[in-house]
Amino acid sequence: MKIVIILSGGMDSGVLLSELFLRTNISAIYALTFDYGSRHNKREIAYARKLAYGYCADHKIIKLDFIKKYFKSSLLGDMRDIPEGHYASENMKSTVVPFRNGIMLSIACGYAESINAEELYIANHAGDHFIYPDCRPAFIGHLKEAMHHGTFNNIRLKSPYCHITKRDIALIGKKLKFDFKNTWSCYKGSNKHCGKCGTCVERKEALEGFDPTEYIK
Amino acid sequence: MKIVIILSGGMDSGVLLSELFLRTNISAIYALTFDYGSRHNKREIAYARKLAYGYCADHKIIKLDFIKKYFKSSLLGDMRDIPEGHYASENMKSTVVPFRNGIMLSIACGYAESINAEELYIANHAGDHFIYPDCRPAFIGHLKEAMHHGTFNNIRLKSPYCHITKRDIALIGKKLKFDFKNTWSCYKGSNKHCGKCGTCVERKEALEGFDPTEYIK
Repeated sequence: MKIVIILSGGMDSGVLLSELFLRTNISAIYALTFDYGSRHNKREIAYARKLAYGYCADHKIIKLDFIKKYFKSSLLGDMRDIPEGHYASENMKSTVVPFRNGIMLSIACGYAESINAEELYIANHAGDHFIYPDCRPAFIGHLKEAMHHGTFNNIRLKSPYCHITKRDIALIGKKLKFDFKNTWSCYKGSNKHCGKCGTCVERKEALEGFDPTEYIK
Repeated sequence: MKIVIILSGGMDSGVLLSELFLRTNISAIYALTFDYGSRHNKREIAYARKLAYGYCADHKIIKLDFIKKYFKSSLLGDMRDIPEGHYASENMKSTVVPFRNGIMLSIACGYAESINAEELYIANHAGDHFIYPDCRPAFIGHLKEAMHHGTFNNIRLKSPYCHITKRDIALIGKKLKFDFKNTWSCYKGSNKHCGKCGTCVERKEALEGFDPTEYIK
């Protein structure tokens, strides 16, 4: 079976890729990374490339120029706009790229149909639900049905981490000896993880006890 | 109320735009046209531009380069690949761009959320159901729910022609004195409508009795 996975270069999709790589019923993995022109995107993409190579996945980078051009989000602006603090807090809402998962998944679904892949994977998790409406189970459930009905091949959308936390994902990765150094989280996109932005705080909490990340002191 | 409409430059979305233009509860119309690199797309886009201008809609053209690059469809190839005959027949399947409506609607939904629009319109109709799975009521219904749950503003997806035929749309247009000459259907994308490809045959049937289109003899 061929599958498609959305690979951001972050730890969640990295761990998922490493899990799928081990499944004997999957013959080929096609990873898609989306370049929506954000600052931290450039860093993420380099990590996605490394991950895809490491897990023998075909890798395509899809540019979405219209997002930076027409959409609003602090992720797409200047580094100063990125809020610091806890990922789940109200001010993190400004980092939302509207309907990003809907857009990435729809494109990935069309691509899956094009190459006769049967399943499409995304690594959204329970911790995302607070701020990102397009990570919630209700959204994923309806999109899953839309994809089933909207394709000739009845593409199956799979979101195996939808009901577990980032900590749980980290523990799965640990068990699989996944190298977290090969992933990027920081929204600020400097050379090292800043350790202060929402995703850095979240990463630290998830990897506590076995975090190999170098943070800016 | 602000709304977003997907405007292809064809007669269906043209008639819908002319209907929405008359509604007093709509204060601003934002039309999105997608350029997925097909032959007939260039023609369509010129007509979409004209329609948007005529109905005072803000108009943006969104390029989707990845479709031509990575997707399979006879629409994206050479003119010889376009099948002739009836729109609803089996060989028209090759003109499907996989999950096209899913992709366009997801992008339009993110854009609607970005500009605080409340509703998103698409002019798919009952005649599309035969060959395009992403035009069917089941697909639209689930995507509608996915958009409701997947956005902060609970964007409402509207598909007012989902259960009527292209002939019905033509009759609505006739009643509104809509000028069908301002729209483009032909998949072949020459100077005039070919009159033989699937969409030309469908257009002829819909406009029978009041068709102002010049077809190649």
